[in-house]
Amino acid sequence: MAQSVLLTGAAGRVGDAILGDLAAEYEWRLMDRDPPTEDYPGEFVVADITDDDAVREAMDGIDAVIHLAGDPRKTAPWDSVLTNNIDGTQTIFEAAVDAGVEKFAFASSNHAVGHYETEDRTPDMYRADDDYLLDGTELPRPGNLYGVSKAAGESLGRYYHDEYGIAVVNVRIGNLTKGHPPIDYERGQAMWLSYRDCAHLFDRCVKADYDYEIVYGISDNDRKYYSLERAKDVLGYEPQDNSAHHD
Amino acid sequence: MAQSVLLTGAAGRVGDAILGDLAAEYEWRLMDRDPPTEDYPGEFVVADITDDDAVREAMDGIDAVIHLAGDPRKTAPWDSVLTNNIDGTQTIFEAAVDAGVEKFAFASSNHAVGHYETEDRTPDMYRADDDYLLDGTELPRPGNLYGVSKAAGESLGRYYHDEYGIAVVNVRIGNLTKGHPPIDYERGQAMWLSYRDCAHLFDRCVKADYDYEIVYGISDNDRKYYSLERAKDVLGYEPQDNSAHHD
Repeated sequence: MAQSVLLTGAAGRVGDAILGDLAAEYEWRLMDRDPPTEDYPGEFVVADITDDDAVREAMDGIDAVIHLAGDPRKTAPWDSVLTNNIDGTQTIFEAAVDAGVEKFAFASSNHAVGHYETEDRTPDMYRADDDYLLDGTELPRPGNLYGVSKAAGESLGRYYHDEYGIAVVNVRIGNLTKGHPPIDYERGQAMWLSYRDCAHLFDRCVKADYDYEIVYGISDNDRKYYSLERAKDVLGYEPQDNSAHHD
Repeated sequence: MAQSVLLTGAAGRVGDAILGDLAAEYEWRLMDRDPPTEDYPGEFVVADITDDDAVREAMDGIDAVIHLAGDPRKTAPWDSVLTNNIDGTQTIFEAAVDAGVEKFAFASSNHAVGHYETEDRTPDMYRADDDYLLDGTELPRPGNLYGVSKAAGESLGRYYHDEYGIAVVNVRIGNLTKGHPPIDYERGQAMWLSYRDCAHLFDRCVKADYDYEIVYGISDNDRKYYSLERAKDVLGYEPQDNSAHHD
């Protein structure tokens, strides 16, 4: 029987990529703050992730969570990320461990490490011949308050894993665009994530065995300053796309 | 002229240790949520750190901030640490950079890395002949939600330093006790911080030059699983006490 997966923020862009390829792969329970405006596979729950009762109800019978919900704007003000991204993520984790969920994939972000892109390193680090690589063992260096909120989500995951044993993977998502990589934007090409690689990566987050991981979510771009080693080795991620092949 | 230092959470235990030795060292502005019940050196501002207007007013003319305020309980519930520790710290940072404050010492905690104390490592790691050492470059592994909030404070500091240039030092405070180290408690002896070493360490946080640091705040105990290297090298910390000399 297919696993039951709760997808929060289902109506967003990452949810769109995931459901585009994996609609038939799982028994989906989809959650979003706004009512659906199109057809979705599986049950659709309209609820805010900070609504503890609604979240607990939605967690019933769930095997794995893909937690995408939150304010996605890199310019989001503090009050919004505090509530939607930090408090919301804690609500989801708490309900997940109480419900006995086994796996939890958290949509973290490149913005959690945005300030590694210092004046000294850029734009060289965005280029294929530069060997600077972040691999997920480095401390966060958020580029904005949105990034601070994503780093906090990763810490919450570390705590819930260590305390309760739930498997947690944080995917620091790069620049997700449909069809082709960003044009005339070196940084975006370096951290490009295609829709199909995105869907495949989150599929691996549900199927693979792991304890606690921080991986980078990008395609196999020639330009690259995020290591794919953990995603490949631990999750079995096999990206198909490369921004260099679309120039 | 003495530097002006804003001390938040002034009436707490860490504040007590700091003011006990450094009352005459700085021009103090003290802030606490509750009105003072004893005499304090300098101006005393009664305000909650989540009160943006009060915090901005208290920041006027300040050279350095020692930010201790927050819910100090390791069992503190999420709602409290979300508001008092995470949101409160963001309020202080935001006001500090707007006021042009140069240095910011943040009272982080051993609880930000509490889950490194795994069943496999304990109690060996608490003993003098064990060489396991955390040095501040490791990712957080919070032992509780209080620890999650302290890790979030460290990330906030990283962001405000990278974005605005304010010098930030995070002191992961161990087990602060007055007079003598904890008795019959190996873990507490390993992370003991004496009152005078505490005061001296925060004195160095105001006087030393640094960019962004994470240091451990413990005395020079024979038992030790936190490195003092960064505190000594970067801050010039010279601890006087050692829990082994008090057994």
